[in-house]
Amino acid sequence: MHPTLLTAASAAPLTKTTATTIAERLFATRRHSIALAAPLTSEDMVVQAMEDASPTKWHLAHVTWFFENFVLKPHLDGYQTFDENFNYCFNSYYEALGPRHPRPRRGLLTRPSAERIFAYRAHVDEALEMLLASEQGQSEDLARLIEIGINHEQQHQELLLTDILALFAASPLKPAYQASPSNVDVSQPEPLRWIEYEGGIHRIGHASNDYCWDNERPQHDALVHPFKLADRLVTNAEWLEFIADGGYATASLWLADGWTTVNREDWQAPLYWEKSDAGWFQMSLHGLLPVVPAEPVAHVSYFEADAFARWAGKRLPTEFEWEMAALEASARHDQPANHFRPQRAKDANLQTPRQLFGDVWQWTSSAYLPYPGYRPPAGAIGEYNGKFMISQQVLRGASCVTPAGHSRPTYRNFFYPHQRWQFVGLRLASEAR
Amino acid sequence: MHPTLLTAASAAPLTKTTATTIAERLFATRRHSIALAAPLTSEDMVVQAMEDASPTKWHLAHVTWFFENFVLKPHLDGYQTFDENFNYCFNSYYEALGPRHPRPRRGLLTRPSAERIFAYRAHVDEALEMLLASEQGQSEDLARLIEIGINHEQQHQELLLTDILALFAASPLKPAYQASPSNVDVSQPEPLRWIEYEGGIHRIGHASNDYCWDNERPQHDALVHPFKLADRLVTNAEWLEFIADGGYATASLWLADGWTTVNREDWQAPLYWEKSDAGWFQMSLHGLLPVVPAEPVAHVSYFEADAFARWAGKRLPTEFEWEMAALEASARHDQPANHFRPQRAKDANLQTPRQLFGDVWQWTSSAYLPYPGYRPPAGAIGEYNGKFMISQQVLRGASCVTPAGHSRPTYRNFFYPHQRWQFVGLRLASEAR
Amino acid sequence: MHPTLLTAASAAPLTKTTATTIAERLFATRRHSIALAAPLTSEDMVVQAMEDASPTKWHLAHVTWFFENFVLKPHLDGYQTFDENFNYCFNSYYEALGPRHPRPRRGLLTRPSAERIFAYRAHVDEALEMLLASEQGQSEDLARLIEIGINHEQQHQELLLTDILALFAASPLKPAYQASPSNVDVSQPEPLRWIEYEGGIHRIGHASNDYCWDNERPQHDALVHPFKLADRLVTNAEWLEFIADGGYATASLWLADGWTTVNREDWQAPLYWEKSDAGWFQMSLHGLLPVVPAEPVAHVSYFEADAFARWAGKRLPTEFEWEMAALEASARHDQPANHFRPQRAKDANLQTPRQLFGDVWQWTSSAYLPYPGYRPPAGAIGEYNGKFMISQQVLRGASCVTPAGHSRPTYRNFFYPHQRWQFVGLRLASEAR
Amino acid sequence: MHPTLLTAASAAPLTKTTATTIAERLFATRRHSIALAAPLTSEDMVVQAMEDASPTKWHLAHVTWFFENFVLKPHLDGYQTFDENFNYCFNSYYEALGPRHPRPRRGLLTRPSAERIFAYRAHVDEALEMLLASEQGQSEDLARLIEIGINHEQQHQELLLTDILALFAASPLKPAYQASPSNVDVSQPEPLRWIEYEGGIHRIGHASNDYCWDNERPQHDALVHPFKLADRLVTNAEWLEFIADGGYATASLWLADGWTTVNREDWQAPLYWEKSDAGWFQMSLHGLLPVVPAEPVAHVSYFEADAFARWAGKRLPTEFEWEMAALEASARHDQPANHFRPQRAKDANLQTPRQLFGDVWQWTSSAYLPYPGYRPPAGAIGEYNGKFMISQQVLRGASCVTPAGHSRPTYRNFFYPHQRWQFVGLRLASEAR
Ligand SMILES: [Fe+3]
Ligand SMILES: [Fe+3]
Ligand SMILES: [Fe+3]
Ligand SMILES: [Fe+3]
Repeated sequence: MHPTLLTAASAAPLTKTTATTIAERLFATRRHSIALAAPLTSEDMVVQAMEDASPTKWHLAHVTWFFENFVLKPHLDGYQTFDENFNYCFNSYYEALGPRHPRPRRGLLTRPSAERIFAYRAHVDEALEMLLASEQGQSEDLARLIEIGINHEQQHQELLLTDILALFAASPLKPAYQASPSNVDVSQPEPLRWIEYEGGIHRIGHASNDYCWDNERPQHDALVHPFKLADRLVTNAEWLEFIADGGYATASLWLADGWTTVNREDWQAPLYWEKSDAGWFQMSLHGLLPVVPAEPVAHVSYFEADAFARWAGKRLPTEFEWEMAALEASARHDQPANHFRPQRAKDANLQTPRQLFGDVWQWTSSAYLPYPGYRPPAGAIGEYNGKFMISQQVLRGASCVTPAGHSRPTYRNFFYPHQRWQFVGLRLASEAR
Repeated sequence: MHPTLLTAASAAPLTKTTATTIAERLFATRRHSIALAAPLTSEDMVVQAMEDASPTKWHLAHVTWFFENFVLKPHLDGYQTFDENFNYCFNSYYEALGPRHPRPRRGLLTRPSAERIFAYRAHVDEALEMLLASEQGQSEDLARLIEIGINHEQQHQELLLTDILALFAASPLKPAYQASPSNVDVSQPEPLRWIEYEGGIHRIGHASNDYCWDNERPQHDALVHPFKLADRLVTNAEWLEFIADGGYATASLWLADGWTTVNREDWQAPLYWEKSDAGWFQMSLHGLLPVVPAEPVAHVSYFEADAFARWAGKRLPTEFEWEMAALEASARHDQPANHFRPQRAKDANLQTPRQLFGDVWQWTSSAYLPYPGYRPPAGAIGEYNGKFMISQQVLRGASCVTPAGHSRPTYRNFFYPHQRWQFVGLRLASEAR
Repeated sequence: MHPTLLTAASAAPLTKTTATTIAERLFATRRHSIALAAPLTSEDMVVQAMEDASPTKWHLAHVTWFFENFVLKPHLDGYQTFDENFNYCFNSYYEALGPRHPRPRRGLLTRPSAERIFAYRAHVDEALEMLLASEQGQSEDLARLIEIGINHEQQHQELLLTDILALFAASPLKPAYQASPSNVDVSQPEPLRWIEYEGGIHRIGHASNDYCWDNERPQHDALVHPFKLADRLVTNAEWLEFIADGGYATASLWLADGWTTVNREDWQAPLYWEKSDAGWFQMSLHGLLPVVPAEPVAHVSYFEADAFARWAGKRLPTEFEWEMAALEASARHDQPANHFRPQRAKDANLQTPRQLFGDVWQWTSSAYLPYPGYRPPAGAIGEYNGKFMISQQVLRGASCVTPAGHSRPTYRNFFYPHQRWQFVGLRLASEAR
Repeated sequence: MHPTLLTAASAAPLTKTTATTIAERLFATRRHSIALAAPLTSEDMVVQAMEDASPTKWHLAHVTWFFENFVLKPHLDGYQTFDENFNYCFNSYYEALGPRHPRPRRGLLTRPSAERIFAYRAHVDEALEMLLASEQGQSEDLARLIEIGINHEQQHQELLLTDILALFAASPLKPAYQASPSNVDVSQPEPLRWIEYEGGIHRIGHASNDYCWDNERPQHDALVHPFKLADRLVTNAEWLEFIADGGYATASLWLADGWTTVNREDWQAPLYWEKSDAGWFQMSLHGLLPVVPAEPVAHVSYFEADAFARWAGKRLPTEFEWEMAALEASARHDQPANHFRPQRAKDANLQTPRQLFGDVWQWTSSAYLPYPGYRPPAGAIGEYNGKFMISQQVLRGASCVTPAGHSRPTYRNFFYPHQRWQFVGLRLASEAR
């Protein structure tokens, strides 16, 4: 039906362990973006589903603009800017790089066409190849910038998919991004188990020389109190119990801002859930499908995750607890998820938490704030993370649509407490005693 | 540059005088819609510029849905509905025809694709041909319904163009729908002259058996007081004087709601005007062009038209005055305008008003209300005009993007006083003495 | 309980027929405002119930400011302005008289105190007395200005009461402005009868030398088509039928803007109606009382009045039809209503419409627009009526809270189609056949 | 001028050290509320300045309702509820205690009158006296509840003053709550000095048996990194430098949400600042006064505090750093401020930070989140603090309008990052090295 998806799968970027050079990883990432757009029509690519989302075409152009502005213009002598207008069109939020097209109007950019954006990508790719083949192209600094560009593009690959889901969910036709998987295991989830952790002073934040965002640094000591962590994510089955128990109608379970939101928005279930005579369905990248009991609940806001935890008599973990548990786990986090929806937990064992990466981002009880001693990098790139450090909550892990090679235990994702269009879910925690 | 535009021009629908049959006129109209879309990409066709506007694709589908629901389903035995989902997607505002996709979200319909909409059009056209060739197809009633469908599609042809202009004006690239005309006459307009009319009881409203909308009926007597009417439209040159004289900053010229709007929206000129170091420019279907002094001012709201008239010591005409003058004029109103912008007045003579049709719709001082004895037609079609008869003002004439054969002296167009994305301008009037 | 109300009643202003001098009428009017405020606490007087309403204190000060600015400052030599700040505080909307406190924030003016406003009134009254006793005070021009001031204050007397009702209705305590009337006739209304009128050219607008607003002029000929008019107002009993028949849930009865409003605001009954186990109640100036079947329905918007008429198979009258009928009627219109709610129709007879004045203002199907040849008066006073002539509908008659001496057949009241906090209702009309 | 203010001052509640019994402290607190309202008219007391603020009358009634519902109803046998309607009127946000009057409409409660609220207070005070004199009244549990009631009323005393300031600032008359102080020291501030702190594990949170809120507990270990803290608050003089240096126009200084707010709200200075030809003024409880250089800046949002710190090359302290410094300081925190505006720093010495309490609340970089192991108390009182633990930032210290006896080093105040109508300012911090 969608032959291009095979391409999408096979074009999955080489992970760090398999790619020998940064150039290999760069172009694999660049190709992967194209592969992700393959199932889409040019009409799908231009429309902005809502203010939080961006059009596919805009994502494809913006990540290219990022390479053009942070890599090519400063480092490739004689680089010819593809189109002077694009700086205005495709700058996202870098105040240092001049005025830009307003975010809520990104969907009005029917021109430049998708075709021209692909040409833009080819132009920039060619220049990147030239640069990487040149002497200039061998510096540490440049490698660092390209690494940022790769990781930036990976973030937008995830957004591209969540934003397409938002668009398709708004359509009365409920189109599928990818054909539906043939058979689904509708059995109930296994019981949840608890893993206990000692407290103490732990090193938090990124340490190695591998790539990380500035917000994962500086590494620093943090005091963690003894705690317990669920060995798997909260499932749809459990969420259905929460609903059946009047979770969305019980004020005492909710933060005040959450309760206001529930009532103003008339929330009665996670985003994309719809009740029909045949039960609950959820819109997904495979179209509208029945809610599967053992799969992790997805598309719940922080408000909902927090209310659920309170209902369950538990709490959400802090980001430090999560990171500490993830560092101790043997979980491979750099593998592609290879599916477009979160999966039921596999391979139960008591020693280690499952589903850390590759299903849903997991809300933590930690506010998104700078680590002690954090300084944003100099220049426009300093706007990447630091200026968002207010009013948001940290999510840890990675989702089913996070690109391979983009996950790690120290990764800090962040969204506002009401947002839920990403693949976001939760894992419970509690005091040790 | 845009070879398709030649097609657009040559596909102009046959007017009543040239087309011998209703079938000829129907299919000419249907082809003309396709021709109008020819310069557009599928990306241009899917996006909704603002809440008041609709996507091209939606226009193309909606007019087709109109034929399907009002003509084919009730009158063609065995007609196969093209797609059951389309009733939800492309019903505009007919409560009697069931729930529908919300107007502000029309731009989210990336599916069905433009291609599928064109297939929908072909399917319906084929069925219409079959119907018109059949015995069933010869009835008066059916002819009447098809006439409505033609006129409905013509209205959307005009909207298609004004909505594309809104979209392109919102683009930082300021694309042109059509290549710019080679040379423009930048000389000043000739002085305006006044034509005087006797008062008395006049027949107002549509009389003949030719097509008209329900809102042009019943024909009835109205008392018109003696008045004078300008022989041409207000020009950009005069509007520049208004601006220069502080028109937009002088409260006493404005209706209270208008003054509120001017300040809230920070209006300083007509819609699509931009001031640069090189003077005033206006976005048009030919792209961003210098404001031409002798051309009629376009894209002004009722508030602005009314303020201008007050500034000029005149007033706007009533719709009855306008109609009476138009009926007396020898103006041909059924000719295609053959241009995408209002033109400077031609052929001055003292006997008759010029520019009645084919440049800009002309605001009147009349509220859009039913004529005495008006009853909306029975059935869903009764929702066409009647339910909008509140809070809007009547405009008379026709604009440069009104399709050929769609203009007449009794035509009543209507918009809210703040709206100005249509080709709307004004003609002055005054008391006779 | 509220002894002051006796005062209120007895302080009813002398009507034109009883007062021999303008001075008598002026000071009777001034005293009446004070009497109207008597049942209110200073807390009631300072608060603004909603954006459309104003605080009592503001009304009391604003009408005084009006005399100060339009009468005393220009005409009383040596007049000492009471407080220079008051021009900013109590100018309503006169752009020509400088900047002013924003309308939606009138309720924040806790200072000046009510006490100081009463002192302001006394100061201005004293100066007015002095002026009227002086030689200066004898001019026609001055008499004209004072007449405007009296009529202006009367308008605000009505608003004062409707705005207090809005305030008290918003209170969980549902306080009564006046003690409830002892017994109410709960019998059903008599059947409605129709009065038939010939068409023809009629003189419309104010003719005599008596006071009128500028918007009632110039008198002019209008062509009226034959019509029938209901001899009484639509009652609560009939409105309950409309509700029971699903009136608020039937899209086809409503103007499109009305239907949008019904759904957005969740209207299910007139303003101030509340359903309890004991049936429908309506908040009134006597507190929360059962809906009385034979009383005229009040607090319905134009949208509702229009939908009701359509449901009834009738229509609303034009303002010309209403005026023509009122001129022919022998109804005394200058008498005080002497009650604070609309009353059931009395004295049925077939010759003449009842309840023209003193119950509810009656929506007409006429938009509020200038009469042919209308020119607003020169100066700031020109802002009184003219600048509101857009998007509103004319109401005719007078309500139960219109002050005595303030009603006449040519009076044009006007509100937006969604507004309903005034005492507004309807009378049906239809074509004569 | 305002003789009642003497009363206000002399009625300052006895602090814990001077009052021998809880009853003494209770009634001193109750009297202090009355004293605070003394300079206000009943009109001042009823109006709600904005959605965040509440009317004085509402504050006075709500704290009384709190005693009635949490103390009298459950603990005083035979207690007669003063008015059954008051639960609806004066419940603030306790979902467990039933529906309530909507917060944004608190200013519409002109009834019950202020007089009746004072009677309500007297009724409840009398019952409280009876209870405290009874055997029932001697329990620990009750003492605990009364302590909560006292502290709750103290919080509202502070809000009462900040909300009155908001009201008076919105008035064109700029009234003073209290007569202006005679002479003000306009000299420049002394240079700021830095105090250095060792890091390590510190006990954070309330430990003793003295009163504290639930959010100050449980006491727990926290790891604090070495840091430096400014020995005084940021002053107006420094803020003027920030303004002069384009602080409000430099995107790179701001958090993204802050920058959006600055532009949307057109912030160019702290709240209540106004620029005139004579320089900057600030509205205060003493009316509109010139900005005094050495006084602490007040009425700045978190966004502004954070931007200022970045501009200064410093940062805000964490709430743990602040608490640790405050615990080490010898500052008396339980003394009444005895003034209605923040004061210039006194008694410079290098050993200890000044202005910890009694000038302005100080923004910290810590999000308002529960301490490890936090559980809200059972019952309705559990809604007091816990449900607000999201999207807000912690402020530490106390302001010039915080009642005596209500300050302590562990106190956690909290507001949204954009809010600035409280007396909020900042103290700088930085890394130790
Ligand atoms: Fe980006
Ligand atoms: Fe249509
Ligand atoms: Fe007025
Ligand atoms: Fe409270």
